Amino acid sequence: MKYVLILIAMVSAGLAQDELATLAQQRGLKPIPKEMLAAAKKAQASPLVQLGKMLYFEPRLSRSGLISCNTCHNLGLGGTDGVAAAIGHKWAANPHHLNSPTVYNAVFNSKQFWDGRSPNLEDQATGPIQAGPEMAMPAELAVERIQSIPEYRDLFQKAFPEEKEALTFLNIGKAIAAFEETLITPSDFDAYLIGKSDALSEQEKKGLDLFVSKGCTTCHNGPGIGGSMMMKFPLIKPYKFADLGDFKGDANGLTKVPTLRNIEETAPYFHNGAVWSLNEAVKIMGETQLGIDLQEAEVEAMVSFLKALTGEKPDVRYPTLPPSSKSTPRPDPS
Amino acid sequence: MKYVLILIAMVSAGLAQDELATLAQQRGLKPIPKEMLAAAKKAQASPLVQLGKMLYFEPRLSRSGLISCNTCHNLGLGGTDGVAAAIGHKWAANPHHLNSPTVYNAVFNSKQFWDGRSPNLEDQATGPIQAGPEMAMPAELAVERIQSIPEYRDLFQKAFPEEKEALTFLNIGKAIAAFEETLITPSDFDAYLIGKSDALSEQEKKGLDLFVSKGCTTCHNGPGIGGSMMMKFPLIKPYKFADLGDFKGDANGLTKVPTLRNIEETAPYFHNGAVWSLNEAVKIMGETQLGIDLQEAEVEAMVSFLKALTGEKPDVRYPTLPPSSKSTPRPDPS
Repeated sequence: MKYVLILIAMVSAGLAQDELATLAQQRGLKPIPKEMLAAAKKAQASPLVQLGKMLYFEPRLSRSGLISCNTCHNLGLGGTDGVAAAIGHKWAANPHHLNSPTVYNAVFNSKQFWDGRSPNLEDQATGPIQAGPEMAMPAELAVERIQSIPEYRDLFQKAFPEEKEALTFLNIGKAIAAFEETLITPSDFDAYLIGKSDALSEQEKKGLDLFVSKGCTTCHNGPGIGGSMMMKFPLIKPYKFADLGDFKGDANGLTKVPTLRNIEETAPYFHNGAVWSLNEAVKIMGETQLGIDLQEAEVEAMVSFLKALTGEKPDVRYPTLPPSSKSTPRPDPS
Repeated sequence: MKYVLILIAMVSAGLAQDELATLAQQRGLKPIPKEMLAAAKKAQASPLVQLGKMLYFEPRLSRSGLISCNTCHNLGLGGTDGVAAAIGHKWAANPHHLNSPTVYNAVFNSKQFWDGRSPNLEDQATGPIQAGPEMAMPAELAVERIQSIPEYRDLFQKAFPEEKEALTFLNIGKAIAAFEETLITPSDFDAYLIGKSDALSEQEKKGLDLFVSKGCTTCHNGPGIGGSMMMKFPLIKPYKFADLGDFKGDANGLTKVPTLRNIEETAPYFHNGAVWSLNEAVKIMGETQLGIDLQEAEVEAMVSFLKALTGEKPDVRYPTLPPSSKSTPRPDPS
């Protein structure tokens, strides 16, 4: 604690910029690797990613023909839908009152879904397509719809040139995942971590220092600033909105630690979307996970830091989707 | 008829290309004006159009926070939703079983909506936002939501620099309309009309010739290839799917003639979306509006021509929407 106070004093005096960045990295906060950004940018024009982008925006992958990945993971809204619990096919609310996690930087998650049941993006992508309260589309029908559209047959062949049968449900997931892997968002915080010491304001640095010193980095770490582990929630004190929804975590009762990148854009918060204010969310995290009562000024500073995690979004040209053919199974919104 | 036969013979012989283009123009088929295309391209970067694009993709303009203009007028799907009757707030189907018309080239419509009740795009845009079965958003609440987002306040000021109170419901409509005015899609047919005689294949020219000679241009004319008038439907013989929905047309029982641009991409067809096959739609039009029984080969040729109306879509970068603030009224999907 003494060390922290000294550090805050040093930061306030503008002396410890490099030390704070170094400390943050030592505590596990990592910038988005430059090579990954370059690779993502390069991949954008590839046949696989272009196809994945089309499928990401493709409402015909849903039974109704109206819901796409982008409906709940809206690239314009921080990669989420902005409602507490996801709404899907026939306006069904998520049966466990689960909040849609952001797709941005989801590539950094070691597991996908709140209960971590999926090991990677390509597996994850095939879940909501089939889930009854989401896109409600049987896998065979999804393939049949896409297969019935001649342009898609060509595009799959180009995206998976080695495969004789390129248009499969697994490859739909692979293509969507390849697009999602390009959705990474470097922020001012990344610039700061890699040496641009004035990329964060004094208030943001104060927040970063608190974020590190209070112990948030125990769970929110890595290039995703989260997403790297499963954790008990609540851990120390009860979560006051625990009765909203019936989510019980994974087999061990653990919940995935979400990324904090773009958190400013992804209210409401927590797995059940119970909390709309980022300040309140930070305060609750202090209580439930760290057993501390954060002061208002501390919360303000930490929120300032969290807002510095809002990143630059990749350019996404809205795709033109190929028309259905005579043999395309019709959408079924009923 | 004799003239037509001669013309067909001439087209088949590859002799009458210029004459056919001239005839088409004489019968009222017009290319998209070059100046309009240039203006649309130029306008894309303007503060007004950029704001309009954001609002077009803005689901927070709906009560639920989940439905945007783009939900039913999907820029990836020919500017439509691909279902028979529009689905809106809480999964309500359009109460009159009306099909969502395309937003592409809607600027060429002399009136908006199937019953032509709206005089222009800026007026039209404010309708579905408020309509109960569509976005279900009271105008005041729409303004309150947008007003609560600081970035939007700035963007409205920049888009409407002359106005003291820039953020109004009318200006929301104006901005959306300004974006929609840029959604025009030049096609091979335009290239043909303005002198590129090989821009259409022989089969497409045969279809164009039939389109002109059979009388389709009586209603489907102008740069929108439709959209310029209200017409009785059915006119001569009954429409076999007339019992689907209860649409009765305008005060005079007339229905808006839709644009045929991008018609390949906008199934299902007619005001009630009853017909999924473009071939069948053409055949029905022949019967109901012209009282003629088109032969299969004629229908095929006309459909080939209609597919040459599929145009190049403008580049639309998916917008990043500004985050809600503490005072933003919450979405209400319930």
